Amino acid sequence: MNYPRIIKSIYREIKEQENGGEIASYIPELANVDAEKFGIQLTNTDNLGVEVGDSRERFSIQSISKVFSLCLAYKAIGRELWNRVGVEPSGTPFNSLVQLEFEKGIPRNPLMNSGAIVVCDVLLGIYENPEEELLSFIRDLADEPDINYCETIFESEKTTGFRNASLVSLMKSFGNIEHETERVLDFYFKMCSIKMSCLELSQAFSFLANDGEKVYDGQRVLTRTQTRRMNAIMQTCGFYDEAGEFAYRVGLPGKSGVGGGIVAVHPGRYSISVWSPKLNTKGNSWRGVRFLEQFTTETEHSIF
Amino acid sequence: MNYPRIIKSIYREIKEQENGGEIASYIPELANVDAEKFGIQLTNTDNLGVEVGDSRERFSIQSISKVFSLCLAYKAIGRELWNRVGVEPSGTPFNSLVQLEFEKGIPRNPLMNSGAIVVCDVLLGIYENPEEELLSFIRDLADEPDINYCETIFESEKTTGFRNASLVSLMKSFGNIEHETERVLDFYFKMCSIKMSCLELSQAFSFLANDGEKVYDGQRVLTRTQTRRMNAIMQTCGFYDEAGEFAYRVGLPGKSGVGGGIVAVHPGRYSISVWSPKLNTKGNSWRGVRFLEQFTTETEHSIF
Amino acid sequence: MNYPRIIKSIYREIKEQENGGEIASYIPELANVDAEKFGIQLTNTDNLGVEVGDSRERFSIQSISKVFSLCLAYKAIGRELWNRVGVEPSGTPFNSLVQLEFEKGIPRNPLMNSGAIVVCDVLLGIYENPEEELLSFIRDLADEPDINYCETIFESEKTTGFRNASLVSLMKSFGNIEHETERVLDFYFKMCSIKMSCLELSQAFSFLANDGEKVYDGQRVLTRTQTRRMNAIMQTCGFYDEAGEFAYRVGLPGKSGVGGGIVAVHPGRYSISVWSPKLNTKGNSWRGVRFLEQFTTETEHSIF
Amino acid sequence: MNYPRIIKSIYREIKEQENGGEIASYIPELANVDAEKFGIQLTNTDNLGVEVGDSRERFSIQSISKVFSLCLAYKAIGRELWNRVGVEPSGTPFNSLVQLEFEKGIPRNPLMNSGAIVVCDVLLGIYENPEEELLSFIRDLADEPDINYCETIFESEKTTGFRNASLVSLMKSFGNIEHETERVLDFYFKMCSIKMSCLELSQAFSFLANDGEKVYDGQRVLTRTQTRRMNAIMQTCGFYDEAGEFAYRVGLPGKSGVGGGIVAVHPGRYSISVWSPKLNTKGNSWRGVRFLEQFTTETEHSIF
Repeated sequence: MNYPRIIKSIYREIKEQENGGEIASYIPELANVDAEKFGIQLTNTDNLGVEVGDSRERFSIQSISKVFSLCLAYKAIGRELWNRVGVEPSGTPFNSLVQLEFEKGIPRNPLMNSGAIVVCDVLLGIYENPEEELLSFIRDLADEPDINYCETIFESEKTTGFRNASLVSLMKSFGNIEHETERVLDFYFKMCSIKMSCLELSQAFSFLANDGEKVYDGQRVLTRTQTRRMNAIMQTCGFYDEAGEFAYRVGLPGKSGVGGGIVAVHPGRYSISVWSPKLNTKGNSWRGVRFLEQFTTETEHSIF
Repeated sequence: MNYPRIIKSIYREIKEQENGGEIASYIPELANVDAEKFGIQLTNTDNLGVEVGDSRERFSIQSISKVFSLCLAYKAIGRELWNRVGVEPSGTPFNSLVQLEFEKGIPRNPLMNSGAIVVCDVLLGIYENPEEELLSFIRDLADEPDINYCETIFESEKTTGFRNASLVSLMKSFGNIEHETERVLDFYFKMCSIKMSCLELSQAFSFLANDGEKVYDGQRVLTRTQTRRMNAIMQTCGFYDEAGEFAYRVGLPGKSGVGGGIVAVHPGRYSISVWSPKLNTKGNSWRGVRFLEQFTTETEHSIF
Repeated sequence: MNYPRIIKSIYREIKEQENGGEIASYIPELANVDAEKFGIQLTNTDNLGVEVGDSRERFSIQSISKVFSLCLAYKAIGRELWNRVGVEPSGTPFNSLVQLEFEKGIPRNPLMNSGAIVVCDVLLGIYENPEEELLSFIRDLADEPDINYCETIFESEKTTGFRNASLVSLMKSFGNIEHETERVLDFYFKMCSIKMSCLELSQAFSFLANDGEKVYDGQRVLTRTQTRRMNAIMQTCGFYDEAGEFAYRVGLPGKSGVGGGIVAVHPGRYSISVWSPKLNTKGNSWRGVRFLEQFTTETEHSIF
Repeated sequence: MNYPRIIKSIYREIKEQENGGEIASYIPELANVDAEKFGIQLTNTDNLGVEVGDSRERFSIQSISKVFSLCLAYKAIGRELWNRVGVEPSGTPFNSLVQLEFEKGIPRNPLMNSGAIVVCDVLLGIYENPEEELLSFIRDLADEPDINYCETIFESEKTTGFRNASLVSLMKSFGNIEHETERVLDFYFKMCSIKMSCLELSQAFSFLANDGEKVYDGQRVLTRTQTRRMNAIMQTCGFYDEAGEFAYRVGLPGKSGVGGGIVAVHPGRYSISVWSPKLNTKGNSWRGVRFLEQFTTETEHSIF
């Protein structure tokens, strides 16, 4: 399989077409990104890679960071985690609050906002300084010591995050948040402010394609079974209200963020990252989804 | 991989343990089934197989039939089908009606009741006698000419199916049902009344593990891409409110029915059917889910 | 209080202003009514009255008929009725199905569609021919023997009533409908097809202003307490999603229909009917609500 | 009408019967109240009164305070208030969040928690020190200068009020809260901490029975029309999910609190307060509702 040829050809083709969708505009740090940015990087389990476009430019990874915090918590406390958050796909965004209420403050899965907030609360119970711990974890996964939180994004998120504040208070009313709501939200918004490039994201996710071992040093992050389960969760819950559509069209587990990034994993083969800031109506990168659909169609690499 | 040894060993182990859960009791034809029935059959893409227990006894496949009607409709009209039904996982059963109302009568996916009813309505628009057409299709997939509807199950379903009657009327009020509600429900209940054995189910599903070609005669049923997409839909939507849990624990696309049957597919490798009538709280076969979890753990055959 | 002068003056004033809102258009019998029709009739407890405009022309009373069937059932079985339907105001129309599901098939009140359907089911259990019984009851209340069902409205309602069919099936699935769904719906649609004039409506409702006794012959229909309770139900539940607004602006118990009719009651004083076919966004007569607001403001006759 | 005889007789009768329901226990200040407390006071429009039992002991009025803040805001900005909060009864408590979400952060009415929080936000925009302003307003209505907030109740409410924190954040996310969420909640919890006696409550509400004028000095608080509208709102929205039942059984506008207090108003006649701490399942005083039902039955004083 000549990955570079396929990737570059699709990249060029999409670059020439209309760039659809809308850039996220709720904070200036996202609104002001150049909408024409477009980068791709693939890292295989032999730690070989190919990249095109803006693949080394860092961007706001937003919700993609939820995968890192989830891995860290899952690694630390294992199955016990599922007492506080489920693994089921959620319904429409419309239902988020009513579901949380109906299910007594237990979020449906750890990749939706409410669930990721619970994961933050779990990490606050394990580590004295979870912000540092998470950052070390990501830096090690990506083999890149200067990945960091972005203070201005963090501040912007805080001033607009009232819906998340509503979620954390609701969960606290049900007893599913142990720490101060302010403290939990601070960590959550911090986590969402991380900036990484496609190259770094593919590197950091590659252990999920490699049965749980980092591809650059062979060190184990999660057990084989845990790794499969992480991938299963990404498959069913990684794309907001478009998880089914993504499974249908692309057929790989992955996670997206409103910064326009998507990382997907082909178990046993590779991890692949795409970045293009304009989002479709479901909040996933418009070009990113198109690219991955065409990529798995041409390579016939859907896991299904 | 010595499938027979693994399957038989897990079968014996589970058979000795407590048989948890409850048998479906809303109609006598399900309530009166022997709760100790337990059968398994695996068919690989070379059309070789292994079976244990009650693998040749027919049982009510119930919702598993939704996969057949979906394949038939998808084969007939292709992507156009998605104008009338989505591919997203649903939320809790609790939400079924409100979601349908909120989404203007478009069901979230074709494997939940509302979606399967729409698929029936679609087939009614294509075929003069869709009941016959569906039966021929299934008989051909399973290579077994005497598979049939069960008249007594059909009659029982009709007398208790008021929730489904409610769904079809609601969708008709939104214009997403074209035929008479009675006619649509009749076909739907008929479809749910089909009886098949594990052996027949594995055979009938094996084309989904074989890139869309029947394993016994090599004839194509769906294109490669369509086949992958069918599997993706089963992965995200095949297990009621336990789709995520099944992906997490078992990691194979599949479909269950309240008769206690489960069929799962490993793309490129095999299809596997399990039957055990007692159901867990989510309506999936208690022993069936346990068996498949242990099977994919021991074979390390999750697609993730 | 010079009622005729006040009524005529407000009538003229409103007649000169723009006639806002939209006529109901889901069936031709409503869509084709002359939008400029406008009639008012007030009957006091001495059986004296005043009328202006099209007060003697019959129109489709639609949901106003729910008050009659409720009185008939309440008269027959008393408080027992509340085991099958509540007396609480409903939320938005949007919530109707989810509420019914959440509350296990018990409608919130007898003046919303689901509740009125249950009342029909109750009457089917009491009377051999409830259609005849209801008609006799209304004819006697209005002292007018040729009030009748309208066959063409009935037929039209039946062909568009899929949402009501959905409600009745859902309630039957919860065991709160005893008779065949078709039979219940037939009676319900029949009931909604009654045609009456403002004059007849005021007459028929006047016992509710008269402590439960008909004003024309002094015969008791309901006890004093029952009468007060009927008025309380109309106050909190009589105007769809505008019950609070109507209480706030008009301050009288009453009931409206999508044919553009409204009947309101001032306990101890009078009943008053208005008819004007164009409806506001909540489904209540646009001119009707305006008229009554101004009427109770000028007479200072709100019950509050 | 011999009010004292009727009130005392019903009081004695109920006092001898079982004291049903449960005392509110979410904060110690409510949990530790003597469950046998029972007081009643009626004040008529001539400022004459009658009282029995613990009518002069102050208790936590809780949600009854929402009527005072609403009057203050309505007096200050009039109809403009309805741009930010509706006047419709709400559905079940279960629906509170989903309704708020569906209706874009506009609460259904000012007497449910979300609506009362918006009213607090409105007052924060009008007055520099709304806590002082509200207290002065209440002291003047009750003609009692030492009514006050209770600091310990306030502190307790703050530490358990996560659901209210969730509501205020959700409304802020929709732009319907102008001030800092902490500031708004502080005022809201402060308001809920007021302690008053039955005597003081009847006095303070008596202007609502007197066309808007205080009964002790004849000074106008609200216009006649505004007064009627306040009463209409209390009628349809004053008793949580039991507004319809209260209208049906008692037939007077009023407001209850989880401290076990209820105040009701008969327009033109009297205001009446009851206090008994044990609550029915809907959160209204068990003995309070019983007393008022019997009282309006015996006096035949329902407004209907």
